[in-house]
Amino acid sequence: MRSDVKSELIRIVGAQRATDRPEDRVAYSYDAYTREHLPDIVLFPLTTREVSAVMKTAFRESVPVTARGSATNLAGEAVPLRGGIVLALSRMDRILSIDAENFRAVVQPGVINHDFQTAVGRLGLLYPPDPSSWMVCSMGGNVCTNAGGPKTVKYGVTRDYLIGLTVVLANGEVLDVRETHFRNGSGYNLTHLFCGSEGTLGIITEITVRLVAKPKATRTLRADFPNLEDSGKAVADIIGSGIVPSALELLDDVVISAVEADAHLGLPPDVEGILLVEVDGEPESLDPQVNRIENVLTANHAVRVIAAKDDAEAQSLWTARRAAFSVMSRLRPTVVMEDATVPVSNLPAMIRKVRESANRHGVRIGVVAHAGDGNLHPLVVFDKRDEEEVERVQRATEEIYREALALGGTLSGEHGIGISKAGLLTLQLDPVAMAVTRAIKQGLDPKGILNPGKFI
Amino acid sequence: MRSDVKSELIRIVGAQRATDRPEDRVAYSYDAYTREHLPDIVLFPLTTREVSAVMKTAFRESVPVTARGSATNLAGEAVPLRGGIVLALSRMDRILSIDAENFRAVVQPGVINHDFQTAVGRLGLLYPPDPSSWMVCSMGGNVCTNAGGPKTVKYGVTRDYLIGLTVVLANGEVLDVRETHFRNGSGYNLTHLFCGSEGTLGIITEITVRLVAKPKATRTLRADFPNLEDSGKAVADIIGSGIVPSALELLDDVVISAVEADAHLGLPPDVEGILLVEVDGEPESLDPQVNRIENVLTANHAVRVIAAKDDAEAQSLWTARRAAFSVMSRLRPTVVMEDATVPVSNLPAMIRKVRESANRHGVRIGVVAHAGDGNLHPLVVFDKRDEEEVERVQRATEEIYREALALGGTLSGEHGIGISKAGLLTLQLDPVAMAVTRAIKQGLDPKGILNPGKFI
Repeated sequence: MRSDVKSELIRIVGAQRATDRPEDRVAYSYDAYTREHLPDIVLFPLTTREVSAVMKTAFRESVPVTARGSATNLAGEAVPLRGGIVLALSRMDRILSIDAENFRAVVQPGVINHDFQTAVGRLGLLYPPDPSSWMVCSMGGNVCTNAGGPKTVKYGVTRDYLIGLTVVLANGEVLDVRETHFRNGSGYNLTHLFCGSEGTLGIITEITVRLVAKPKATRTLRADFPNLEDSGKAVADIIGSGIVPSALELLDDVVISAVEADAHLGLPPDVEGILLVEVDGEPESLDPQVNRIENVLTANHAVRVIAAKDDAEAQSLWTARRAAFSVMSRLRPTVVMEDATVPVSNLPAMIRKVRESANRHGVRIGVVAHAGDGNLHPLVVFDKRDEEEVERVQRATEEIYREALALGGTLSGEHGIGISKAGLLTLQLDPVAMAVTRAIKQGLDPKGILNPGKFI
Repeated sequence: MRSDVKSELIRIVGAQRATDRPEDRVAYSYDAYTREHLPDIVLFPLTTREVSAVMKTAFRESVPVTARGSATNLAGEAVPLRGGIVLALSRMDRILSIDAENFRAVVQPGVINHDFQTAVGRLGLLYPPDPSSWMVCSMGGNVCTNAGGPKTVKYGVTRDYLIGLTVVLANGEVLDVRETHFRNGSGYNLTHLFCGSEGTLGIITEITVRLVAKPKATRTLRADFPNLEDSGKAVADIIGSGIVPSALELLDDVVISAVEADAHLGLPPDVEGILLVEVDGEPESLDPQVNRIENVLTANHAVRVIAAKDDAEAQSLWTARRAAFSVMSRLRPTVVMEDATVPVSNLPAMIRKVRESANRHGVRIGVVAHAGDGNLHPLVVFDKRDEEEVERVQRATEEIYREALALGGTLSGEHGIGISKAGLLTLQLDPVAMAVTRAIKQGLDPKGILNPGKFI
């Protein structure tokens, strides 16, 4: 980067909020995926106006810009593959308003999901999207990847709560799009176009979301299945019965035994799958639902169904699910959490395919799944410094994604495309879809400076 | 249109399914809005392949193409403003598959919403979007306008159920986009871009939707409010209490007295607003909800709360709401149903503004509203042959839309932009949003042949 351009950028945000020191550039060269690339400079803007000024300079000089929230991205979205500017939005972390009467709130992109949950929870409200990284991930990152979480089966994903955005475009112009609670029939759906676009179409600087009333009560069940197919059948039967659980999560035996070896939670050694089922809502409606779910689980050959008696017990049931990523990550130097979807009825078949690919290539892979909506996360553990092993991992994961598509699924449920699947995207999107994708990208970012190397 | 082009188009679909007879062109020159324009030819394709061939010819010859479903559009979306081809998709009316296990179905665009509801209902499933025109409107039209309906407050709009589309692009290429049940993190959200684009970006030839389990029971309440503000407050309080009604509809006194004069349903003469509240779900959960709703309604000064004892009584409570459009349309030669949204808490203020505009310009306007999500439909009755009256109507409605935006709302909740609001769109979308809209339109329809004269 030319030094006069660098100086101009530093003048925009002030020397306190810009750095090109090598150690800082390294710190902003990677996210939770395995790749890295050094940016030339890292900027910490505070306002939409500053972001706009940065983009005007970047546009004029054709400098790449990669936005970054908490960088918990699992697919490499926040890695500045072509160098240039990293726009670290972590200091734009203010909750601007919570309108309890109209169930909406406005936040800056750097607000942490958990902080926002806490703030709206105090007012008796709920913002449902809660990705597993919710303690640290940012609302802006959630929008850019259209993040989900365990509650998706009942409540949907980030875009279902997104009703307005302020976006700084590639040329520095500021786009303001808003909807009202639920409905909008006015023009192209730009909010949903930016949601999930992984920073390739604009920099999000303000987010308006809708909220729902916090459910008054919650109940949690754990069911142990000796046979994986039975657990998949139970999932389909629960949803088919008309009950909409607020979470419906599956752990396979690779994850179960890793968690048990590490955390000693008393998980059974003799099962192929554990289902966690949560229902929420009006207190009086939960007992009958729990009874019906217990019947479905038992009818599908669960050997054990444990209902939490209180919040503490429910939390302990969830511990195994929450521990999965960290426990698996302790087995080997590298852990990658893959992400694919299949129709719910194909989930057991898909997990079998994961198992076969793991065995065929000698790779260790456990599976956790948001079973209620067919979104599975194979957890692949390996050592990224071992090139031969990395190759085997790549073969296994490519097989897994081809299988997911063959079973009627998609390449990603919630982690996005980023770097990890840029090469695979053409498997899902045919040349026409890629041409449309390119036309949109070209229209909004004609110089290709926004998060280059991703998507296209 | 050149006769050789016309002959080529007729060859594509066959002479049986093409017409340029004057009486047919007139029949396809208008929809449920007040404007009309003659097409040069009307084609009735049966397959995606035929639509693709038509578009290839139209693209080469730069001929305008306007797609048409049942033409129940209330904003003029189906009027071929620049002539050319009307693609009548009404004969592409097959339900291609219903996958009850995975809660999804594939339909052609000409399938009637009610026929689809009936087919999935037989399997214990529900497709929630049910616009008031559901007996005759088409699924393709629902997607093009992102149609809503009374159930939106609980279930969302068409796009919330849309998980895949086959779209023929302007150049005749066929785009296939699909998601899985709920989740997809793979590429730009093209399904939601086409949804609500009113035929300006492509011709939809196949639609994949998700379904939900049909609720086991439904309860309906009617509440009479002497004071309009109180009914608005009751709406906010019901939603604030954590109950999510499956419908929450408001009728104002202009509509109430028109319905009563015509249909003699025993509606009260002394109220400013009637609320209809419906809840659905597990039978055991409904009684407590109904009790709590009754308490909220009474606490907000409803003078009368009537709970339907059975389905027949519930249907009779809904009759007034259903009759609104037809009853109002009998008052004067022309009826236009306007469509705006405001935040729920501003709904009473908005209805007051409608009243003021009506009085100021001497125009008769009644209001029905999907109150639960702040979507109101002013029903304007007048005589479109009376130019002076039409001018007064235009002044009143423009005032109404400016007011809706001033109160934090949008120009349309569910009817779309079409012709009726093309001029108003710049009120909601600033020059940057219009530029982005144009960039997308230009990228996907560079010759501007898809439904020209709309949006841009």
